[in-house]
Amino acid sequence: MAFNKRTKIKFLLDSNKIGDSVTVMGWVRTKRSNKSVSFIALNDGSVIDNLQLVAAPDVVGEDTLKKISTGACIKASGDLVASQGAGQATELMVTSLEVLGEADPEKYPLQPKRHSLEFLREIAHLRMRTNTFGAVFRVRHALAFAVHQYFNNKGFFYIHTPIITASDAEGAGETFKVTTLDLKNPPLTEEGHINFKEDFFERETNLTVSGQLEGELAAMALSEIYTFGPTFRAENSNTTRHLAEFWMIEPEMAFFDAEDNQDLAEDFLKSIISYAMEHCKEDLEFLDKRAEEENNKKPTNERSELGLLERLKFVVEHDFERLTYTEAIEILRNSKPNKKKKFNYLIEDWGADLQSEHERFLVEKHFKKPVILTDYPKDIKAFYMKQNEDGKTVAAMDILFPGIGEIVGGSQREESLQKLTSRMEEMDISPEELHWYLDTRRFGSTPHAGFGLGFERMVQFVTGMGNIRDVIAFPRTPGNAEF
Amino acid sequence: MAFNKRTKIKFLLDSNKIGDSVTVMGWVRTKRSNKSVSFIALNDGSVIDNLQLVAAPDVVGEDTLKKISTGACIKASGDLVASQGAGQATELMVTSLEVLGEADPEKYPLQPKRHSLEFLREIAHLRMRTNTFGAVFRVRHALAFAVHQYFNNKGFFYIHTPIITASDAEGAGETFKVTTLDLKNPPLTEEGHINFKEDFFERETNLTVSGQLEGELAAMALSEIYTFGPTFRAENSNTTRHLAEFWMIEPEMAFFDAEDNQDLAEDFLKSIISYAMEHCKEDLEFLDKRAEEENNKKPTNERSELGLLERLKFVVEHDFERLTYTEAIEILRNSKPNKKKKFNYLIEDWGADLQSEHERFLVEKHFKKPVILTDYPKDIKAFYMKQNEDGKTVAAMDILFPGIGEIVGGSQREESLQKLTSRMEEMDISPEELHWYLDTRRFGSTPHAGFGLGFERMVQFVTGMGNIRDVIAFPRTPGNAEF
Repeated sequence: MAFNKRTKIKFLLDSNKIGDSVTVMGWVRTKRSNKSVSFIALNDGSVIDNLQLVAAPDVVGEDTLKKISTGACIKASGDLVASQGAGQATELMVTSLEVLGEADPEKYPLQPKRHSLEFLREIAHLRMRTNTFGAVFRVRHALAFAVHQYFNNKGFFYIHTPIITASDAEGAGETFKVTTLDLKNPPLTEEGHINFKEDFFERETNLTVSGQLEGELAAMALSEIYTFGPTFRAENSNTTRHLAEFWMIEPEMAFFDAEDNQDLAEDFLKSIISYAMEHCKEDLEFLDKRAEEENNKKPTNERSELGLLERLKFVVEHDFERLTYTEAIEILRNSKPNKKKKFNYLIEDWGADLQSEHERFLVEKHFKKPVILTDYPKDIKAFYMKQNEDGKTVAAMDILFPGIGEIVGGSQREESLQKLTSRMEEMDISPEELHWYLDTRRFGSTPHAGFGLGFERMVQFVTGMGNIRDVIAFPRTPGNAEF
Repeated sequence: MAFNKRTKIKFLLDSNKIGDSVTVMGWVRTKRSNKSVSFIALNDGSVIDNLQLVAAPDVVGEDTLKKISTGACIKASGDLVASQGAGQATELMVTSLEVLGEADPEKYPLQPKRHSLEFLREIAHLRMRTNTFGAVFRVRHALAFAVHQYFNNKGFFYIHTPIITASDAEGAGETFKVTTLDLKNPPLTEEGHINFKEDFFERETNLTVSGQLEGELAAMALSEIYTFGPTFRAENSNTTRHLAEFWMIEPEMAFFDAEDNQDLAEDFLKSIISYAMEHCKEDLEFLDKRAEEENNKKPTNERSELGLLERLKFVVEHDFERLTYTEAIEILRNSKPNKKKKFNYLIEDWGADLQSEHERFLVEKHFKKPVILTDYPKDIKAFYMKQNEDGKTVAAMDILFPGIGEIVGGSQREESLQKLTSRMEEMDISPEELHWYLDTRRFGSTPHAGFGLGFERMVQFVTGMGNIRDVIAFPRTPGNAEF
């Protein structure tokens, strides 16, 4: 006999079938008892709302009742009735109840009170059982599904680019080494170097920082592809915006120029946010209230003007502001915080790299909407970006979001073999090592473009969670690889 | 002006709009010219079929024509007309044509002839431009999307479990070490061991072999979840069935017992295969022909009785055979190849681990359909599987497919803290190290179950590709981490 004859609470609450006899299973959130009746709030993770169970003493005896505490797992059958209390439309009149697993109140760390996010991070293996993290991970799921659905509907193909790679040619940052060598006694060459010929892959390998280069290979065969996989940075950044292991979405499109790329990115971002708004109503309403409470605790000058849901709606309904780096520098140079020397990094000359404070000024103060910044100086961007005719800039784009800063980085790619090779030589990147990448320009090259979205930054934006460690199940950061 | 004003060839061929004026872009597969006309077969990766371009000499002059060779990228505009030749319904009468990127026939490795899979593996960065690999990667995409859609429709949540992990408690195999230490001069402790306190995560870390344990944590909060991510084995296996880096799908369900688990796995496998059959008709027809040709090259006794499409249809339309390990041992012990000593490993006693030859006998010769084998001896299975009442077996299941062998492995999980802990102690697995995992049994435990599907094995099954290196874009195997 199969065990799983239950109805999910989400389905019960959505369909609201008064009079039906059902079985539910889930975890107890709270219990209130008096002599004549017990009320048990049950959650099964399918939805943020609890189902209220109403149990009379003759159905659930004292011995059983004792075992029902916050965190316990139970199975209950009964009839759905219209609720007489406030706060819910439906409740379950229990006709039978079984405790599947207890949760000793002396030991169970999640009690019905507000726990700090810091505390919950330490028990990340249990935090998904809270309202906040349940909501965050349901929204994360919806966003991930929306990504796949969006690209599938447009005829893009999902490509799994390699995680272990021998190429660090992009130079995008510090990498993690991957090895099976004995760290204590690594084999050495005659010259005294590590002999990677004896390593698993017979060469030095590391964890990927981006699937873009391999994504370009696929786009030059299948036209339009995307990746959605983990990427890694071994940077010692202990901030609320950085993870050592995070998920990236990297679409890459043959026959797209810089403008096509911007159009796609804007449509894509709006589409997945809309999907979450439509499919995660209850969770986002809860997170909206949570964000409002957090906001009210902040000093007045740091508060957001818009609530979470308002911010999502605002992004979906307005065109992103598009301007060049050169135009942005002019705005920043003449801005109040620059003139009053409020920026930590004052903007003086064209060519300066923009800091987070500048990006936030543009998005949050000046334009008050998402911004697509284009045509950056070539010296602060990667080698593969298309060189503009001015000889100074490249066809890059960064998309800046309120509260998050850079959420997307992309560019049209340089399709000319000759221009790309000479740029690589200027930047001391070996064309020989990247011979396979250059083959895309050698054989059947074409204008093409792509971008990368840091998935966790998007989940942060949609859920309003301030710390990136709170939007991935088991965050990896310097000194932290628990669970 | 945006560049991408083209129509995808898939859309043109599907909609068949004779009379429309369109622009297409893609890569040349073949060109045939005579004095009065040129025929160019153009492929843009959106579909396996080419669009035939028909160009008169006054539209495409000799200079341009010279640049059009296999692999070149072109942009062509013209009118769709009903084709006068055989082999296609529609063709494009070209009114203008531009070569976007040439492909020097002296250097371009992909010429219009049959290349061996071994040769194509060496140029994996270009092989997606061939019919076979275009088809394989479109099918791979469809299967991946089908996975997400299946679970999303059922209310499962997608969880990203960690790639870098400090736990190797499952002991599922050799792992890759992940480190930022200087391999030549690693810091040592006073006792002379590597001082992992100075490593990035301040402990020893490796690449995950499975997301299951973390998946269980999520299932005990959200009820039904699945993972879909890369997993790693540092095993020196140079076979057609093993990769060092491969993608796994691992659903995990609270409130499921062994039978629920089997029902879900069978329904899931049938559903994603059906999806591919429905959405990849042209690609699967091509791969079916390819598989038939390969099959005919084999010695008679090694040939499959069913063609690729027949095999897919057969799996979708028939119930999987379910039997226990004990029943399977009886069948094998009394089988012809066992009695005639044709098996490399003869089946004598209950308790023997089944080899690939035994699995294939059961699936391909005895039952001639997929088999779900259940209730294996506990000594050959992992510590977390539910202990059956006989004291000898566990509630495991392996699903065996024709030509592939084991494609799914799963089990009901042991929900009793006491039984699980004593099994761990018997197997020398530290309950302290896995305290977080045991918390799921300590607090609100419940019957639950799950399974893992090796995604590449599924892609092999659906595409009929014999070597697993040919169903992932850039395979990682011993000595090979190219691209």
